[in-house]
Amino acid sequence: MTAIDDLCVNTIRVLSIDAVELAASGHPGMPMGAAPMAYVLWTRHLRHDPANPKWVDRDRFVLSAGHGSMLLYSLLYLTGYDLTLDDLEHFRRWGSRTPGHPERGSSAGIEVTTGPLGQGFGNAVGMAIAERWLAATFNRPDHPVVDHWTYVIASDGDLMEGVASEAASLAGDLHLGRLIVLYDANRITLSGTTNITFSEDVGARFQAYGWHVQQVDGLDLGAVDAAIATARVEKSRPSLIVARTHIGFGSPHKQDTFEAHGEPLGKEETRLTKRAYGWPEDSAFYVPAEAQRKFDEGRERGAALYDAWRQAMDGYRTAHADLAVEFERAVAGRLPPQWDAKLPSYTPHEGPMATRDAGGKVIEVLAAAVPNLVGGSADLDPSTRTMMKGKGDFQSRTVPEGGQSPPTQGEAGGPWGYEGRNIHFGIREHAMAAILTGMAHHGAVIPFGATFLTFSDYMRPSIRLAALSEAHVIYVWTHDSIGLGEDGPTHQPIEQLASLRAMPNMLLIRPADANETVEAWRIAMQHRSGPVGLVLTRQKLPILDRTKLAAAAGTARGAYVLIDAEKGSLPELILIATGSEVSLALGAHGRLTGEGVRSRVVSMPSWELFEAQSAEYREAVLPSGVHARVSIEAGSSFGWGHYVGPTGAIIGVDRFGASAPGPVVMAHYGFTVEHVVATAKTVLGR
Amino acid sequence: MTAIDDLCVNTIRVLSIDAVELAASGHPGMPMGAAPMAYVLWTRHLRHDPANPKWVDRDRFVLSAGHGSMLLYSLLYLTGYDLTLDDLEHFRRWGSRTPGHPERGSSAGIEVTTGPLGQGFGNAVGMAIAERWLAATFNRPDHPVVDHWTYVIASDGDLMEGVASEAASLAGDLHLGRLIVLYDANRITLSGTTNITFSEDVGARFQAYGWHVQQVDGLDLGAVDAAIATARVEKSRPSLIVARTHIGFGSPHKQDTFEAHGEPLGKEETRLTKRAYGWPEDSAFYVPAEAQRKFDEGRERGAALYDAWRQAMDGYRTAHADLAVEFERAVAGRLPPQWDAKLPSYTPHEGPMATRDAGGKVIEVLAAAVPNLVGGSADLDPSTRTMMKGKGDFQSRTVPEGGQSPPTQGEAGGPWGYEGRNIHFGIREHAMAAILTGMAHHGAVIPFGATFLTFSDYMRPSIRLAALSEAHVIYVWTHDSIGLGEDGPTHQPIEQLASLRAMPNMLLIRPADANETVEAWRIAMQHRSGPVGLVLTRQKLPILDRTKLAAAAGTARGAYVLIDAEKGSLPELILIATGSEVSLALGAHGRLTGEGVRSRVVSMPSWELFEAQSAEYREAVLPSGVHARVSIEAGSSFGWGHYVGPTGAIIGVDRFGASAPGPVVMAHYGFTVEHVVATAKTVLGR
Repeated sequence: MTAIDDLCVNTIRVLSIDAVELAASGHPGMPMGAAPMAYVLWTRHLRHDPANPKWVDRDRFVLSAGHGSMLLYSLLYLTGYDLTLDDLEHFRRWGSRTPGHPERGSSAGIEVTTGPLGQGFGNAVGMAIAERWLAATFNRPDHPVVDHWTYVIASDGDLMEGVASEAASLAGDLHLGRLIVLYDANRITLSGTTNITFSEDVGARFQAYGWHVQQVDGLDLGAVDAAIATARVEKSRPSLIVARTHIGFGSPHKQDTFEAHGEPLGKEETRLTKRAYGWPEDSAFYVPAEAQRKFDEGRERGAALYDAWRQAMDGYRTAHADLAVEFERAVAGRLPPQWDAKLPSYTPHEGPMATRDAGGKVIEVLAAAVPNLVGGSADLDPSTRTMMKGKGDFQSRTVPEGGQSPPTQGEAGGPWGYEGRNIHFGIREHAMAAILTGMAHHGAVIPFGATFLTFSDYMRPSIRLAALSEAHVIYVWTHDSIGLGEDGPTHQPIEQLASLRAMPNMLLIRPADANETVEAWRIAMQHRSGPVGLVLTRQKLPILDRTKLAAAAGTARGAYVLIDAEKGSLPELILIATGSEVSLALGAHGRLTGEGVRSRVVSMPSWELFEAQSAEYREAVLPSGVHARVSIEAGSSFGWGHYVGPTGAIIGVDRFGASAPGPVVMAHYGFTVEHVVATAKTVLGR
Repeated sequence: MTAIDDLCVNTIRVLSIDAVELAASGHPGMPMGAAPMAYVLWTRHLRHDPANPKWVDRDRFVLSAGHGSMLLYSLLYLTGYDLTLDDLEHFRRWGSRTPGHPERGSSAGIEVTTGPLGQGFGNAVGMAIAERWLAATFNRPDHPVVDHWTYVIASDGDLMEGVASEAASLAGDLHLGRLIVLYDANRITLSGTTNITFSEDVGARFQAYGWHVQQVDGLDLGAVDAAIATARVEKSRPSLIVARTHIGFGSPHKQDTFEAHGEPLGKEETRLTKRAYGWPEDSAFYVPAEAQRKFDEGRERGAALYDAWRQAMDGYRTAHADLAVEFERAVAGRLPPQWDAKLPSYTPHEGPMATRDAGGKVIEVLAAAVPNLVGGSADLDPSTRTMMKGKGDFQSRTVPEGGQSPPTQGEAGGPWGYEGRNIHFGIREHAMAAILTGMAHHGAVIPFGATFLTFSDYMRPSIRLAALSEAHVIYVWTHDSIGLGEDGPTHQPIEQLASLRAMPNMLLIRPADANETVEAWRIAMQHRSGPVGLVLTRQKLPILDRTKLAAAAGTARGAYVLIDAEKGSLPELILIATGSEVSLALGAHGRLTGEGVRSRVVSMPSWELFEAQSAEYREAVLPSGVHARVSIEAGSSFGWGHYVGPTGAIIGVDRFGASAPGPVVMAHYGFTVEHVVATAKTVLGR
């Protein structure tokens, strides 16, 4: 390590220590140990331009070990991103741009929100997938407009998490050679040393996944530098660089102990540590001018890289004008003109249709109209109906050693390679969700992923981060109730609708028929401020007769009056239903009308969209004067009290399901016209 | 394969095919491929007595690939469990004992509920842990009363799931040599062949975890037999037997295709398959007498094994009377006499205390009083306060090759070995939850596991199966709200309370102070019909003055009146709060009383317990005549409408949290006495 490198590395360390100390809260040990490798990566390899943090062809850097946030903030500050010393001094304070864990959006240069372990690793695999897809789709000979790497710093904890294991297995399968993970192997976790519980051979495990693995001394800048260079040359396999580091490096009493993990060093130990670094002991947030000059060199390098790319883009625009338009539209996050012009609509005479099938037909249309819609399922596409036929399988063309050549055409038809748009996530729901978020935050693609609604449970930690970081991700969740039948309670969702509705910034839509499904997809494609979950049936549902009922466009308002009692008078009773239960409500409405009861049926595909409407609209749909209300949804009753009120009734499911044919289960659980009618009469006091 | 073995294997296959065919739903391919290895395991190795399915020292068998349920039902029927041909004929029908996926409790011999992939694998690791702990704790020289194996059949899908990866890593670390996994490597998943997405070297991966790995032809009974025998000899490492099999074996048109996975073969293909097996083509549910005789031999073997164990127990009772009493109490699931006599109680003069700390003190007492309380955390025990001091670390004493000898005393103090009671789950929340369920269903231990409440999301699929299968598991979830402060929104739970309450059969308790925490633990120890989640704070809370307020014993009723307006008249207003917000409600009550408002404070630690009370009690606590109600809980408002009604107000959190010191965040989010008072006045119209 040269003196200047040493100085720069210690600057990163000391800024991190000081910020944690001032906040009286945080994780100093990780930045102290990982500073050398982060320094080498950021100053010698990372292709980025701090002045253009949204440059689409920048390398992506993910701090999966999000608790080491001060490492990232120090780097962002020193390399010239829009972050000030004052921001560092406000680490972990109300309203600051330097929160406890990195949050995408809090300041430029934070690619994803991390903290919950393993998630950043999964996001990074998504970014590397997006990069390969964009490169395969848009690059042309002599015009490599997409050509970047994804780098990760991951901790012991990240690599213990199942989501990282799933993502690593898929990354190996896909030969994502542009993904390079620096594993900060400090052998210390929050509660002790890893030999207590993590004695596996991580390198060997990653080799088994098909990764290229190197072992280095994480303190040796030259060794780290060489390992990254080697990893970049190895383009057919993702790389894991196992860097042996020391948590709390330089702290005389806390290095290599778990005490350095999650709390400030303390005043005296901070002083001693600075002494060990040869730092002025009483300084705070001190950045030596010489170190700053060294970091500033990176700005020029970044500006030059960005300029070169802009010139390349100019050449691309000239040579491939149409492609360039499409590429720039994708990068800008705009949908193609007329993207929804060919979305289908359905009439009842086409016969009943499961909403999963209606969704499949929408995907077929969108696959043609929106070229950057990319997605797949967790090994369930024959059931979720989410295959984009003829659009190819996203696969590596690399022939594994001694392996067979992959077919030139996959199941989906079309190309088999990185330009394929159907991703086979495998039975890895959690990684799928983390990957989708990474793809969305990479930008220029619109990702979707499918599985059964029950298995949204497996995805939940990643869904939450997608919601928190406002990722434009579309989840397709089929088999949405006890109506799925024989597979039984392990597969029948009950509490999932309530659980997902309770999550902030999650938009859930459960359409009632094929036409509402079309509308749901239309909304999902345009909703930019967070994930959207589409909740679809396995079983067939009647297509509602829109000549007699309100138009499906009402879906966009979350809830709408499908059919009312005779005009001009308030109904006596409101039946509120979602998804498959809307037809049931209509059946009951017919029966009740025959018996002289004036009822209204409200289709309510989305609570969140409804709550976003004006008070007037909401009052018009659910007039406060009508107290007799019945909600019907084959899921937990939890939360429905809000809409039916104390005098209403909820037809829901508050126990686990049962294995039997769908219609049998539905009937046993009270989802029959008879039961709805009887409940309505009880509510009306008749 | 001898002719009789061949006949027996085909009997298993054909029963499975016929049941799926009659149900017109199910998964025939897996039983057809895995029948040979299952047959060898069940007839030559599995120590079980079908007449005594609850024998504590039986080998455990887990069908992690739960979709192959007919394999298990066929085996249970043929080997003499309480299951009839009629039961098989009612596969997947309403009320049958043979549901679509195996459900613990639906018939004898089903150890755990499986179907969602990876879960059974994790459960099995829990069973193997329980076995080793019980053996180390209760066995004495010449008296090995606990001495059994745990066997698993797992599929490609199981081994793709992160939960299985986490569990496998821990099993390797713990040297669980009594765990033997037969990996049904049929290379086919629901949507295609595994080479599309699962090209990793699974065997090498498991070796990296520290497992003993063998490769066999799954059709070769002798090879499978030998591999199991070898695995049993290898006692210092868990074993993975990679058995190459063929999904839908014998089906002329569907073998080795994903069409054999999830739907009936069809009438004609069934006929052709039976022909290939040399079976009467028009038979249904046909069991050759010769095959049944062969299976019946196992009954005698089982009875002999059980008798030998009973005799061993008699000897143990004589030699080690006290231990035997303790062992039999543990097996019976009874708590020791006076188990809760020493639980602490607290007075306000002891100063404020975080409920996580109160929980820690309870655990200390219970650790001494209940010797079979075994548990740990997902690498967070310094934060969750769940270490049982002096009770040792659950670790293997095996010295890894070339490795260092483990310390003789771990962090917890006390023994370092399988008799240690503190399990270090590592940063593997999902596996922890699956393991806890396996431990509970193994029996004779009371397991608990701890992490932050936010990370209950990682555990969710396993929590759900614990709830469905009524496992007695205790979850300790600390850092229960935005009150945790600086770590920010990634760590601050918002929707978790609502999400867990929405889950059927999940009991959640969020105590308001140290004394309610004691009561919560008392309930958790005795609740036998499903998991209990204890939700505890990071921040300190005042200890409520029970000389002026109702006793904490009210916790058991879910909600109780803590303090009321003057006697004899109904209050004007009810403040309902849980956990840390109860003190806030009391503060507001004091302020309101000073202003002449008659308010009641209800502490509501558990919705589920409250809903289980009589209508009279519930009316007494929340009189329907009092419409002015305010709920206060630092979590999603979702569902609170049920208790506050349309004229009430909910003080909750319906957006993500923020990184700042806890009190600052709480104040910004409206959790102040001032805001509660103001809200109350609004509700009262003043």
